[in-house]
Amino acid sequence: MIEEKQILQQINDPTDLRRLNIEELTVLAEEVRQSILQVVAENGGHLASNLGAVELTLAVHYVFDTPHDLVVWDVGHQCYAHKLITGRRERFTTIRTAQGLSGFCNAEESEYDCFTTGHASNSLSLALGLASARDIKGEKRHVVAIIGDGALTGGMAFEALDHGGELQSPLIVIVNDNKMSIAANVGALARHLMKLRAAPAYHRAKRDVDACLQKIPGIGGFIATILRKIKAAGKYLISRGILFEELGYVYLGPIDGHDLPQLIEILEVAKGSDRPVVVHVRTCKGKGYAPAEQNPSRFHGASPFFLDSGYTKTNKQATFTDVFSDTLLEIASQDDRVCAVTAAMADGAGLKDFAKAFPQRFFDVGIAEQHALSFAAGLAKGGMKPVVAIYSTFLQRAYDQVMEDICLQRLPVVLAVDRAGVVGEDGYSHQGLYDLSYLRSIPGLTVMAPRDGAELQMMLKTAVTWKRPVAIRYPRDKADWGLPLPAPLCFGKGELLREGHDVALLSCGVMSAAAMAAAAILQRQGVKAAVFNCRFVSPLDEAGIKSLTAACGGRVAVIEDNIIAGGFGESCAVLLQEQKADLLFISLPKSFIAQGSRDKILENYGLQGEKIAESVFGKWFQS
Amino acid sequence: MIEEKQILQQINDPTDLRRLNIEELTVLAEEVRQSILQVVAENGGHLASNLGAVELTLAVHYVFDTPHDLVVWDVGHQCYAHKLITGRRERFTTIRTAQGLSGFCNAEESEYDCFTTGHASNSLSLALGLASARDIKGEKRHVVAIIGDGALTGGMAFEALDHGGELQSPLIVIVNDNKMSIAANVGALARHLMKLRAAPAYHRAKRDVDACLQKIPGIGGFIATILRKIKAAGKYLISRGILFEELGYVYLGPIDGHDLPQLIEILEVAKGSDRPVVVHVRTCKGKGYAPAEQNPSRFHGASPFFLDSGYTKTNKQATFTDVFSDTLLEIASQDDRVCAVTAAMADGAGLKDFAKAFPQRFFDVGIAEQHALSFAAGLAKGGMKPVVAIYSTFLQRAYDQVMEDICLQRLPVVLAVDRAGVVGEDGYSHQGLYDLSYLRSIPGLTVMAPRDGAELQMMLKTAVTWKRPVAIRYPRDKADWGLPLPAPLCFGKGELLREGHDVALLSCGVMSAAAMAAAAILQRQGVKAAVFNCRFVSPLDEAGIKSLTAACGGRVAVIEDNIIAGGFGESCAVLLQEQKADLLFISLPKSFIAQGSRDKILENYGLQGEKIAESVFGKWFQS
Repeated sequence: MIEEKQILQQINDPTDLRRLNIEELTVLAEEVRQSILQVVAENGGHLASNLGAVELTLAVHYVFDTPHDLVVWDVGHQCYAHKLITGRRERFTTIRTAQGLSGFCNAEESEYDCFTTGHASNSLSLALGLASARDIKGEKRHVVAIIGDGALTGGMAFEALDHGGELQSPLIVIVNDNKMSIAANVGALARHLMKLRAAPAYHRAKRDVDACLQKIPGIGGFIATILRKIKAAGKYLISRGILFEELGYVYLGPIDGHDLPQLIEILEVAKGSDRPVVVHVRTCKGKGYAPAEQNPSRFHGASPFFLDSGYTKTNKQATFTDVFSDTLLEIASQDDRVCAVTAAMADGAGLKDFAKAFPQRFFDVGIAEQHALSFAAGLAKGGMKPVVAIYSTFLQRAYDQVMEDICLQRLPVVLAVDRAGVVGEDGYSHQGLYDLSYLRSIPGLTVMAPRDGAELQMMLKTAVTWKRPVAIRYPRDKADWGLPLPAPLCFGKGELLREGHDVALLSCGVMSAAAMAAAAILQRQGVKAAVFNCRFVSPLDEAGIKSLTAACGGRVAVIEDNIIAGGFGESCAVLLQEQKADLLFISLPKSFIAQGSRDKILENYGLQGEKIAESVFGKWFQS
Repeated sequence: MIEEKQILQQINDPTDLRRLNIEELTVLAEEVRQSILQVVAENGGHLASNLGAVELTLAVHYVFDTPHDLVVWDVGHQCYAHKLITGRRERFTTIRTAQGLSGFCNAEESEYDCFTTGHASNSLSLALGLASARDIKGEKRHVVAIIGDGALTGGMAFEALDHGGELQSPLIVIVNDNKMSIAANVGALARHLMKLRAAPAYHRAKRDVDACLQKIPGIGGFIATILRKIKAAGKYLISRGILFEELGYVYLGPIDGHDLPQLIEILEVAKGSDRPVVVHVRTCKGKGYAPAEQNPSRFHGASPFFLDSGYTKTNKQATFTDVFSDTLLEIASQDDRVCAVTAAMADGAGLKDFAKAFPQRFFDVGIAEQHALSFAAGLAKGGMKPVVAIYSTFLQRAYDQVMEDICLQRLPVVLAVDRAGVVGEDGYSHQGLYDLSYLRSIPGLTVMAPRDGAELQMMLKTAVTWKRPVAIRYPRDKADWGLPLPAPLCFGKGELLREGHDVALLSCGVMSAAAMAAAAILQRQGVKAAVFNCRFVSPLDEAGIKSLTAACGGRVAVIEDNIIAGGFGESCAVLLQEQKADLLFISLPKSFIAQGSRDKILENYGLQGEKIAESVFGKWFQS
């Protein structure tokens, strides 16, 4: 019966949902959960967070008049149930595939998605902007932001909370708290206060409430910390929301995020408030699927898996992340000044083993990239050798800190920039297509890109010995490309991978493997292409590139998995302009690029052996 | 007697200070204050904050064993007293001048400056890194961070507080609270608790304190908000620090930051704590100088002024900021969807009049650039036309938000990027030399630079009618350069300012005025230079630039007040490489540039009429 999804089949948009009774909604939740499980097992994706948000999603659309009322999802990777009930049910099997649905909210897909999302902690700012616009225009609509407890540690969420409390404009902030189990029985008084606080008579009642509060031992709280510590603070009866209250919010909660009647009841109360409200909902990551409930972090962003066992389907090859992980462990065991810093990405960025082996030198600061980078600067100033493992797209959050706190200080911090280049299925917000541009222009920052795992190992080992800021960027990809072992690394020098005199292929990072493949094809067409693995994007190997250009008759193809604007190719153009070289830029266009498989996207943009050979041959050697 | 500064003359470093008694310290404070006043009246600089921090600075160096103990100043514009007593007394008159002392902390100047600073809210992260390094190495030293209440609104300060509370490593956070007056009489119990909490027996005493607390009505607080609201909350006796306590900090305060004995006493208590401590110090901005006490915001960053009256010395010419201010006011009076957003810079960025005229459409979000940009995105999505007025260097904090929340969404937010290019006396951390690089590579962002006030007016009026993200960058400079009125603005098109066929000068923003001056000089040397005011840095006027290049025999000088890496010149190099143009790049080097007058710095780097003419003549027309 569940298999047939009889109710879900009838939900074409949330108005259909609003006709259901609680029993039907409960069945629908189960059907939605099964749909998510089936599709994620097949396509991969964010599983645990989506399973945890099913009832919350249904309740929000049940209570609020979407899309007239506006819902902003933080990050947006928990939007699968939302997509299933907002007219995208039939395309749901295409999620995270090329031309399919995005794995995040996407304003191009649906009017129910206010924003195209992917980064954390910004939902409150966006929602507050929507609420302020509504107020200026004198419109009547509710604005709801849904944010996880993890994203609340991001500084900009605090900035927005602070501002929202001051504005006092109606705004409903739902804290989807899925990290801890909270004792359910908060007492009758708490329940009473919960409603009392949000009732229209709230302001008039405040004095009475205060009088009441004064009879009870009170203790304040601080968003994330309070959420973390809430269990310990359980002896205090009613004060969990006092922080939010101090900030000017009505606080409701905590309530069970899998109890549909309770959710609907509390959201109705929140809807009636003429002031900003925080609704604290506790949910269970992976809810309803035992393997994910038991190991939510493995099922956070999951590869395709077998539904019955939870085992991953893919045959795992060693990735750059794996090589980084092993190498850092080796380095740290030999040098006790080496520290590792992550912003809530210990697993994805390859620091899990480091955390176990060197707990004193491992720092997970939460979703707080700005702090992560400046904290690393402090560590370096204090004599440590910090390595910050971070995704290319999230490092964007700390651009200023890299410039001001690391590079202006000339501090030896190593940035291990993972997920650089085309990221694949995560799409728009997670592409690492911009880092060469934004890192290359920062004074004093050395920027390297390894062609394979062996070179990453070499670069990382060398970088920690340099007394300068260094970024090493590498993709979410396999680490072995069958290339010969790298030549020793010299600062600012590239590596000639293949000799030739007809054309120079200047490549950056893994594009060197593609360039080698292209050179082999060109060879069969009678063209002798040199392949120069630049290694350093900043500083460029000026002498090496110039002399190779001269040797190749000024014919140069510059190959990078970064956008052209401000990237590696442009810096070569400046370098080679005096030589009047003839340049072919093989890069990504200056644009945002949607989801799809990494290989397919690279191929589409000509960043793959055959395509490179074609472009080079077409430009210079076509008869 | 004060004039002679007898005590200050003896202070060569803080060890001299530590030999003084309280009476001598009090006299020293007055001498330091007078020195600051005299030098700032002459050189300009941050006055109000420095006058407010005199006693705090002396007390910190008196109690802590600097430089062995480490002190991190947030922002660092309040470091004048610090510089006077740490070996830089004799160079103090050179502050903010070329080759002189920096107006901020500067690690190159002194071992007493841990970091070269300038941006806000990062001190806690840096200090926490230092403290963690100390712990790993097992060293014994105190780490102190001094942060203003304003900087606490920056999200990264919260990120660091959160992390610091978790680490529980000894760290002393001094909150220099200079915005509000707080009732001094916090009661005997508070004083008692103050010491009790920080005493070594704190942990053992905690239960007793808790028991004691339970008899008292408690109310929590939230850093900035609580500081703002603290007066209102005065009815509650001892709970001001409950937020910090919840976060894991010992809270001491508030105390009078101009009372040296009290400061010394409390810092001694803080020094004895084996846990992180927050010391809440209230100070008066502009303390001791009536004009600054009465109008601290005018004396935040002051131009040279007459000491007796407080009147500004300089003859004020209309600046780009003035033009922006007037124009936005005009636009907003005609279009009620136009909103203005600032991150604590209403005064500097020219929004003071807007705030008065349109309070409902004006938003000062505090030092919170990330939120400011995403909040503006929300406003735009809600149908408003937000204009964010922000300094180039502070926009770096919101690079990711510009990319993800504005440009990926294609939302019509206008960024009014002030202080772009060379900033002058504020030096390193405040230079706007990077914005063309980091903005130009963001997909979908239109980037313009006006050559003068008239063009800024035109660009701003036009930008708010476009349905796309736009950045307009302009310098801290006069707005009138005697150029003819600008031709109408067409999207993506430049303006030919002067015809010529020997060489093309492609200029960006105010560099157009310099290029015109250069062209006039070249004319006298028999060289007919065309001047092309590009207007758009993104998208480039490709057709216009290419045809002019062809008409000028491929001789092109590209002139920008931005670093070369990733900037305007590089984009022209790519555009013109097929034409095999001969390019001369006149830009700033990829480096951090110290303080000095704006004109002098531009001249030093060749970005001025005569120098440009010289470079152009030297490259192509020298016989």
